[in-house]
Amino acid sequence: MTLILALDFGGTKLAAATINAGSKQWLGYERRLSPTNANADTDLEIMRSVINSLLKGAKPDAIGVSFGGPVDATTGKVRLSHHVLGWENVPLRNLLEEEFGVPAGVDNDANVAALGEHRFGAGQGYDSLFYITVSTGVGGGWILNSQPWRGSEGMAGEIGHMVVDPNGPVCLCGKRGCVERLASGPYMAQDVREVLRNEPQRHREPRGEILRELVGDNLELITGKVVSEAAAAGDNLAQEILYRASWALGVGIGNVANLINPQRFVLGGGVMKAGEDFWEVLQRVARETALPEVNFEIVPAALGDDAPLWGAVALAEDVLH
Amino acid sequence: MTLILALDFGGTKLAAATINAGSKQWLGYERRLSPTNANADTDLEIMRSVINSLLKGAKPDAIGVSFGGPVDATTGKVRLSHHVLGWENVPLRNLLEEEFGVPAGVDNDANVAALGEHRFGAGQGYDSLFYITVSTGVGGGWILNSQPWRGSEGMAGEIGHMVVDPNGPVCLCGKRGCVERLASGPYMAQDVREVLRNEPQRHREPRGEILRELVGDNLELITGKVVSEAAAAGDNLAQEILYRASWALGVGIGNVANLINPQRFVLGGGVMKAGEDFWEVLQRVARETALPEVNFEIVPAALGDDAPLWGAVALAEDVLH
Repeated sequence: MTLILALDFGGTKLAAATINAGSKQWLGYERRLSPTNANADTDLEIMRSVINSLLKGAKPDAIGVSFGGPVDATTGKVRLSHHVLGWENVPLRNLLEEEFGVPAGVDNDANVAALGEHRFGAGQGYDSLFYITVSTGVGGGWILNSQPWRGSEGMAGEIGHMVVDPNGPVCLCGKRGCVERLASGPYMAQDVREVLRNEPQRHREPRGEILRELVGDNLELITGKVVSEAAAAGDNLAQEILYRASWALGVGIGNVANLINPQRFVLGGGVMKAGEDFWEVLQRVARETALPEVNFEIVPAALGDDAPLWGAVALAEDVLH
Repeated sequence: MTLILALDFGGTKLAAATINAGSKQWLGYERRLSPTNANADTDLEIMRSVINSLLKGAKPDAIGVSFGGPVDATTGKVRLSHHVLGWENVPLRNLLEEEFGVPAGVDNDANVAALGEHRFGAGQGYDSLFYITVSTGVGGGWILNSQPWRGSEGMAGEIGHMVVDPNGPVCLCGKRGCVERLASGPYMAQDVREVLRNEPQRHREPRGEILRELVGDNLELITGKVVSEAAAAGDNLAQEILYRASWALGVGIGNVANLINPQRFVLGGGVMKAGEDFWEVLQRVARETALPEVNFEIVPAALGDDAPLWGAVALAEDVLH
């Protein structure tokens, strides 16, 4: 038996699991929320206690790690976290290898989730796929020739900052109309709030009435999920914003299909709950954007929130070979 | 000695060369223009006579072929030519292998040129690069992990039909604002002609005066090259159109850098003669479009018109191993 330890440092969430290599069933599995004032040290402390309770003194044969932020996968060094302080240049792989005396692999969450979906989920049996996560951010991970493709410096997969509308709203990255600016949950919520704040409530054809109701008129409570719910309930403003998000993702996916011609696009994250209309627009726009002779499928992720953990298992299996 | 026969079916041009494997010097080299009423049969006839004059009875050990149109590289079957009739589903590899009794490799010109630049040109020593040809069309070829990446069905590299301005002019492919629609020679010429035709010549601030002069007022003579020349000579309209072309290419390259993170972009085709301003805008816009932490270089192709022939040599070398 080869015992694998899989870790997921998710920014706001921490998860760990153990499994025997080759098995499809967790031996142990635990999730924790990261405290609001978390830093790298507290995250590592919490993770250590989770690991101890899972391993109960056993020694793993290999460790795989998904990290929610840029990682140099060749050295296993975390570059930084956009959510948690103190992760700058932490040599996470070395740290774990020394602590447990076994080999470890560390990569960013999108690459690891791509690996997880490829080995255990919606990408099984496909040589090439692009995994896209759409939730608080928009990121992606590549499988080409059945192997992760990380780019020359580990930066590949950034579909979130592909410009799809040069006249669109300004993104945090400084450009206009990035996929992430149009399709991520927080930005959709922000745009909806902006309209609701600036539009007189006694407008002749009021927009966003259902949205207002859903949050009891407290606009701060609007999230991407609320926008999806309001759209499903028929809210015109929410539908408009969600249409724009699905259009942006569709253009992005069609462009990527033309460029790399992967067999499959696997979509995970909050977008999976965005409703049928969203998926239909996304599929149609992607199809229209790609050349007619470029074939591809767009499917939802199969592993949900566990994709990074399953990918971590694959990563650990790979460092053993 | 291993004798390589390299062929380039370029649409309007045919070229062939012989070389000893491992050498950097052609043994024989010949170029012909394809007749205006060419079809697949006449192209093959001309190529046969060129080959005979090059080989002088010697037998090559392997054949590499660059074809100007979509090819299924796994079978070596040409799908079609957009320039020459009769190329639909021609099994070019089989045909050559039977005729010469040696192994052959066939791929489309962008992929082959990428291979040529990687093995012999501006991509030597780089693990990952994207070769982009910008002339009558805009196409691209990938080298990833030092190997060609052709996509799941050989369709990868189509940066020409990446949408960079959804409000831009309509492309032949049906979409708006594709890179090719904004940056290819014929489209630039078309847009310039359109402005010159619709603008009264006795305008207060006339545009395109230098353009008109260059073609003796015969607007049909305007080409992408003429636009570049007029821009270099200070023509305001030509500069405007060329700026838009370099902007479109820059956005496309920046998007690709974010997505795949290759080390180098190698640009070939007519664009190499587009002038310093063009290259400066292209570099700046690509840099602005890519995320700050995504590094890359954009360099001109080193092999010029011979890139497909050199790539064909590499392809032939590869079928021998």
